[in-house]
Amino acid sequence: MVGIIMGSISDLKVMQGAVDILEKFQVKYEIEIVSAHRTPEKMVSYASEAESRGLSAIIAGAGGAAHLPGMVASCTVLPVIGVPVKSSNSIDGWDSVLSILQMPNGVPVATVALNASMNAGLLAIQIMSTADSELRKKLHNYKEELKEKVNQMNVELNSAK
Amino acid sequence: MVGIIMGSISDLKVMQGAVDILEKFQVKYEIEIVSAHRTPEKMVSYASEAESRGLSAIIAGAGGAAHLPGMVASCTVLPVIGVPVKSSNSIDGWDSVLSILQMPNGVPVATVALNASMNAGLLAIQIMSTADSELRKKLHNYKEELKEKVNQMNVELNSAK
Amino acid sequence: MVGIIMGSISDLKVMQGAVDILEKFQVKYEIEIVSAHRTPEKMVSYASEAESRGLSAIIAGAGGAAHLPGMVASCTVLPVIGVPVKSSNSIDGWDSVLSILQMPNGVPVATVALNASMNAGLLAIQIMSTADSELRKKLHNYKEELKEKVNQMNVELNSAK
Amino acid sequence: MVGIIMGSISDLKVMQGAVDILEKFQVKYEIEIVSAHRTPEKMVSYASEAESRGLSAIIAGAGGAAHLPGMVASCTVLPVIGVPVKSSNSIDGWDSVLSILQMPNGVPVATVALNASMNAGLLAIQIMSTADSELRKKLHNYKEELKEKVNQMNVELNSAK
Amino acid sequence: MVGIIMGSISDLKVMQGAVDILEKFQVKYEIEIVSAHRTPEKMVSYASEAESRGLSAIIAGAGGAAHLPGMVASCTVLPVIGVPVKSSNSIDGWDSVLSILQMPNGVPVATVALNASMNAGLLAIQIMSTADSELRKKLHNYKEELKEKVNQMNVELNSAK
Amino acid sequence: MVGIIMGSISDLKVMQGAVDILEKFQVKYEIEIVSAHRTPEKMVSYASEAESRGLSAIIAGAGGAAHLPGMVASCTVLPVIGVPVKSSNSIDGWDSVLSILQMPNGVPVATVALNASMNAGLLAIQIMSTADSELRKKLHNYKEELKEKVNQMNVELNSAK
Amino acid sequence: MVGIIMGSISDLKVMQGAVDILEKFQVKYEIEIVSAHRTPEKMVSYASEAESRGLSAIIAGAGGAAHLPGMVASCTVLPVIGVPVKSSNSIDGWDSVLSILQMPNGVPVATVALNASMNAGLLAIQIMSTADSELRKKLHNYKEELKEKVNQMNVELNSAK
Amino acid sequence: MVGIIMGSISDLKVMQGAVDILEKFQVKYEIEIVSAHRTPEKMVSYASEAESRGLSAIIAGAGGAAHLPGMVASCTVLPVIGVPVKSSNSIDGWDSVLSILQMPNGVPVATVALNASMNAGLLAIQIMSTADSELRKKLHNYKEELKEKVNQMNVELNSAK
Repeated sequence: MVGIIMGSISDLKVMQGAVDILEKFQVKYEIEIVSAHRTPEKMVSYASEAESRGLSAIIAGAGGAAHLPGMVASCTVLPVIGVPVKSSNSIDGWDSVLSILQMPNGVPVATVALNASMNAGLLAIQIMSTADSELRKKLHNYKEELKEKVNQMNVELNSAK
Repeated sequence: MVGIIMGSISDLKVMQGAVDILEKFQVKYEIEIVSAHRTPEKMVSYASEAESRGLSAIIAGAGGAAHLPGMVASCTVLPVIGVPVKSSNSIDGWDSVLSILQMPNGVPVATVALNASMNAGLLAIQIMSTADSELRKKLHNYKEELKEKVNQMNVELNSAK
Repeated sequence: MVGIIMGSISDLKVMQGAVDILEKFQVKYEIEIVSAHRTPEKMVSYASEAESRGLSAIIAGAGGAAHLPGMVASCTVLPVIGVPVKSSNSIDGWDSVLSILQMPNGVPVATVALNASMNAGLLAIQIMSTADSELRKKLHNYKEELKEKVNQMNVELNSAK
Repeated sequence: MVGIIMGSISDLKVMQGAVDILEKFQVKYEIEIVSAHRTPEKMVSYASEAESRGLSAIIAGAGGAAHLPGMVASCTVLPVIGVPVKSSNSIDGWDSVLSILQMPNGVPVATVALNASMNAGLLAIQIMSTADSELRKKLHNYKEELKEKVNQMNVELNSAK
Repeated sequence: MVGIIMGSISDLKVMQGAVDILEKFQVKYEIEIVSAHRTPEKMVSYASEAESRGLSAIIAGAGGAAHLPGMVASCTVLPVIGVPVKSSNSIDGWDSVLSILQMPNGVPVATVALNASMNAGLLAIQIMSTADSELRKKLHNYKEELKEKVNQMNVELNSAK
Repeated sequence: MVGIIMGSISDLKVMQGAVDILEKFQVKYEIEIVSAHRTPEKMVSYASEAESRGLSAIIAGAGGAAHLPGMVASCTVLPVIGVPVKSSNSIDGWDSVLSILQMPNGVPVATVALNASMNAGLLAIQIMSTADSELRKKLHNYKEELKEKVNQMNVELNSAK
Repeated sequence: MVGIIMGSISDLKVMQGAVDILEKFQVKYEIEIVSAHRTPEKMVSYASEAESRGLSAIIAGAGGAAHLPGMVASCTVLPVIGVPVKSSNSIDGWDSVLSILQMPNGVPVATVALNASMNAGLLAIQIMSTADSELRKKLHNYKEELKEKVNQMNVELNSAK
Repeated sequence: MVGIIMGSISDLKVMQGAVDILEKFQVKYEIEIVSAHRTPEKMVSYASEAESRGLSAIIAGAGGAAHLPGMVASCTVLPVIGVPVKSSNSIDGWDSVLSILQMPNGVPVATVALNASMNAGLLAIQIMSTADSELRKKLHNYKEELKEKVNQMNVELNSAK
């Protein structure tokens, strides 16, 4: 199971991409608002108990001074995937990106592109596929879908000419 | 009393400026390594107990994905002053600055300039002077010193001509 | 009492956040347009007389080459809180942030996030609470409100599923 | 087994951090120079055959227009961890970071901080621990070491006073 | 003949400028969706066969972590012109620009301005004019058109006064 | 006469370029340390009296949150030339540049390149040459010198081959 | 007389601010489209003849790779004022600002804020006032207007309460 | 023949890379100091006469407000390759890159990476190979050399283990 957390319900629109790809791959997930700054104790307990609750990876989205992914990573040994969110209080997304990416030695956060929650979901799936050959197969199929989509775009391009 | 904390002893060189100015103003302080990422529980308890332990303000220095000041602010109602440190793992200091400055509504961090721990110390003194007229007087004297320093620079400039 | 100043009435929309939070905490404030560049003498006298007029802290908002917070800080020993405003003549807010944040040694400005006047208000309240235990209590209650808001968001999230 | 690749032997100094942490955790790895730009066919075959050769994750370091991590990710379903290297031809590291981080939907790269190859190694270990409870235990021990290091720093700090 | 490729049909709106200027100069072109990340093998074969298929230059447009131009350049000796596209997943275009521009020694990409596909087309024409005196003449005529356009603007300016 | 001011004697090294070019053109100048933040009243009186004291232009150099040029401009109608100084407390010079350049409508500062005090001096000379045909002639001679320097460089280049 | 030039009629909207302030001060001006890149010879002759045609200063606005102000400055000894225009092909204005500001030693451009053509006009007036006491008086009156505007804003602010 | 120009002899160190690669490919070149800002007329005539003098492409290197490549491109229909030089008066190279890259529609400059004069030389060779099958062959050989270099690096890497 994958845990998806975010600092505010306003991040849900961006984080929906992770939900969608996990559902597509039929991977179980839970989703919850956990704020590093407003509910620090809850964040610590969420992160500390994640492993024993059976989570395989945590996807954390946050904007501005985005401390959630890094703080969760400080409280668990599970892989933590950080999604920089270009929230309304962000300076063009730079603060979100740097606050999540630039973690010190010893506490990594697997950072994806700005707003790229779908890729965070895929990364969680890739991680879980380490111990799940069925998921691995689905990932290979997904690669084929990506290629097929380009083929379809070329059909569209040619018909537009 | 002012609490001075930093994520690593390598930050001490930068944070010494806060120590020096507090000593100059004869303001009590304590200093400790508290890491948001390596000792998250300690950080939570340090911040949560700071008020009852009698601290008036906390100065927190950190570099890179600098979560210490903001996380401490999330666990206390004391004023928290953040010092962005241009550490070796920083991207020209931008990560440190943005990680500390761009806090969400509800949890402010009083941010000073990159590496400006001396100004963090002064800000703590200004805050404490709200309830300490003696300190207020010293701050007025300090303003005069700043002016005097410029006078001396002009003497130096003229003698150099 | 807290002094709220800004360089132009066009900044009022952003600075309203400070007004709102001070009113919520029932902290007295005054509000005035004081421009560093258009009314420099007025700015100097406003800042110089702020302490004797009984202000405890000054919140100054400005955009672009934002000199108001730093110049006010140069003329008073009161804590000055700077709000970088993303005004129409700003380069994505970077100029406002850097002009306020990067003060030289000796003259600190407590800088908050871009447009974060609400946090400037909270910081002023935290500062005043140094000498006002009633305010301190309200700040603790406010922390609880922040947590409660996250709880409500989770209710909303679950009902949306 | 973890595959560590980099575009040039000049990146080895930075990438050594990944080697060191993997050795500390006794995780097998292979290391090779694979250049996206100078040996594109080799890169495609390296990435395409990585899964069948038994790799669990690939760590790819690159600087400047850093295409290696993203291109490898396009040719495998294994998790790919990207290390932005601040090489001599880099613009302060921004090019390396953005070229690796900003991958399009469908092809994630787990990006770590600038030059943070040690964290890339840790992330690989966290990923492998999904199917290896022994590794999971070592990660818990490692967390304790991080805390212990802070304790030692405080001893050092106190003896320096 | 000029090859125009792009990573997604959503880039076509930007890349149309190259099509238009090539048509104006009556230079033959082909246009195709080729994605570095979704169709890496196709990209390698497209680039590898471009010379034998008779292309004189390749114009490649891409956004975000824009690997297409550089990877194509790694697989051909033809001049490759890169168009950084400010796509929806781009951080203000900086990622697109740096991912294309900052190529390592040995594998150049002729980079044009953000979204400047028209200039990419002109550059291809300038390159082909090395072996085509007719095209050279047209380029001289085009220079005159540019001047004439400024003259017309002045007429418009004067009539507006 | 030209007034050259700077916030600290540490800026003198950079500002010497203005002194040198004014001496070369035999234009009178005065030089003084005037700090916006440490001596605000002195700054206001310096700027306010500059015109009546016979200055034609003011060159002001400052680093970090560089308020001196803009504040001087707010207190005089003389042309003010701002030199962004890359001081030790500057973030790569960006803060100095933006703090000086981004002045609001109504109060211009003629900004030159980072550390380009020599060009500030030249600009002052160009301004004074509006009312001084002798200076105008010297400026024409100086243009010739610039050309001659390029000629000499070519001699050097050819002899190096 | 002031010469106002710009690279394209699309810049007129921004450059109108210079026109308006010059008209307000009853300073003569001429306005023309002169493109560094499309009409380089015209630009050279415009700049070379500006002094003999009786211009006192040149205001040049340009966006993107904004070469017009600097190139005009290379061909005249008159003061040249550069207005960085945030045109549609600009990267958030950074290219326009840096292309105009960062001139090499020997060829200054008096740069104003992004889009700040009004300030460019004021700077031209300040320059001309060096030899025109009537203009100087108007500038003093204008300073009073700026102050008065702030007074009016305070009236507005108070009536809004 | 390829023309290599630069604004100052101080750029020679960076531009030597273009010289070296052209000599390796036995492509004729000429090299000259041509400054857009100090010798604008010479620059115009150099560019205007380049085609008739038999040049096939022009490589122009410049730093800071780097106008040379774009201005040369405005005066010739030959392909112009721009090398952003990180000169001493540059802001981390950003000014050089943006001043060269962000050319307006109609006047392209083929921009290479910061300081990447070697790639500028290769691009010129690729352009000339359009009409020179011998050069084309050498480019194929060069691609093989790049691969061979990676092989050698792997030998070195393995022997270091």
